[in-house]
Amino acid sequence: MSAGTIYGVGLGPGAQDLMSVRADRLVRNARHVAFFRKAGRKGQARAIVEGMLHADAVEFPMEYPVTTEIPVADPRYNALLSAFYTQCTDHLQALAAGGADVVVLCEGDPFFYGSFMHIYTRLKDAVPVDVVPAITGMSGAWTATGQPITWGDDVLTVLMATLPEDVLAEKIAATDALVVMKIGRNLPKLKRALDRAGRLQDAWIVEYAQMPRQNVQRLAEASAVTPYFSIVLIHGQGRRP
Amino acid sequence: MSAGTIYGVGLGPGAQDLMSVRADRLVRNARHVAFFRKAGRKGQARAIVEGMLHADAVEFPMEYPVTTEIPVADPRYNALLSAFYTQCTDHLQALAAGGADVVVLCEGDPFFYGSFMHIYTRLKDAVPVDVVPAITGMSGAWTATGQPITWGDDVLTVLMATLPEDVLAEKIAATDALVVMKIGRNLPKLKRALDRAGRLQDAWIVEYAQMPRQNVQRLAEASAVTPYFSIVLIHGQGRRP
Repeated sequence: MSAGTIYGVGLGPGAQDLMSVRADRLVRNARHVAFFRKAGRKGQARAIVEGMLHADAVEFPMEYPVTTEIPVADPRYNALLSAFYTQCTDHLQALAAGGADVVVLCEGDPFFYGSFMHIYTRLKDAVPVDVVPAITGMSGAWTATGQPITWGDDVLTVLMATLPEDVLAEKIAATDALVVMKIGRNLPKLKRALDRAGRLQDAWIVEYAQMPRQNVQRLAEASAVTPYFSIVLIHGQGRRP
Repeated sequence: MSAGTIYGVGLGPGAQDLMSVRADRLVRNARHVAFFRKAGRKGQARAIVEGMLHADAVEFPMEYPVTTEIPVADPRYNALLSAFYTQCTDHLQALAAGGADVVVLCEGDPFFYGSFMHIYTRLKDAVPVDVVPAITGMSGAWTATGQPITWGDDVLTVLMATLPEDVLAEKIAATDALVVMKIGRNLPKLKRALDRAGRLQDAWIVEYAQMPRQNVQRLAEASAVTPYFSIVLIHGQGRRP
């Protein structure tokens, strides 16, 4: 019996018809699907494919042992997550060794700040792994604003709001176009950094890009945002004949 | 009669099944398709959809009046391109005013350094325009390398190789992960900038990502590259439990 393949399938920003044709086919035909989620939640990747899975598909939810309860800098955080990824990997590897293909559902693009990468690096030399790129959440977000993100020679910088405020302010001041992700509880810090860089008035916040609850606001005027599903961006103003 | 809609449809990096389900449906059902190309060429966007168009689809190739014959800094370059975009827009607007929907085929993602943006800004207040995001060429390229592009808090910088060497060297030295596009005749300059930033050994070049001729090489060892269809990148090395 030959080994099955682990497919890391990018689902894109959230709308089912923004999945690639290849991803759509893999998801609909899958007999084994795996996905990450917070304990007690349905999981965003799983929610995207609602109604698409085969009736007898076997689901393997991978529940993070920790998300924000322990600071990232705490050594226990790393140890817990490392053990968790190894445990997930063992299960997927056993399925593949038994000849089964497994589709791992990934929000956005699997190789762009994705959780799948932690499984990928552990599996890639052991079993066949295939990665399907996807529309990133940031593409979904800038399309939602109705304004192009980059023109001509614009420099685009992508930052995580988890970075220190000084780093954020310095990088924001030095770029033309900007995308900031992992907003979460870092929104007040990010706003301070944007203000220090003189760019707060240029910033937009997109919540639930390409999903039914999509909402686009100027960040300086935004109220009641849901930071976990938000992306902040500044459009480049480069050359345009 | 109500006005038709101009659809700016992102086609992704090149493989037909990496088009979104929405893009696939729009392309296959289109009665009018428009696309940019160099004079005398088939056009990369048109080539991607080969075999997908309706038998009686009306094609409107938009041929650049100039590409590299006149320097970008020459005022004539801007004037020629501006007149060209206005002329394209007039034709598309007339089609839409006559009630026809038009699919504009766009390589990659329409709002990410795309030519469609020049049409979009001229049309968006005159007729209905709808933009379909897509997998970027850079996602196609980093997936092709078999290594994730960004981890944890990595900073990603996207640069055009058309920038001055000093700017390139400074930005490359200051980022974790890197994507460089618009390589063209700027490859020697880009290599010097990477070398000055101490990053040449970390750089990869991907030609024809997600296309049959896909080729991935370390840039320092690369030979016989086809710069027009190439993307250079450096993978981030951020936190990974």
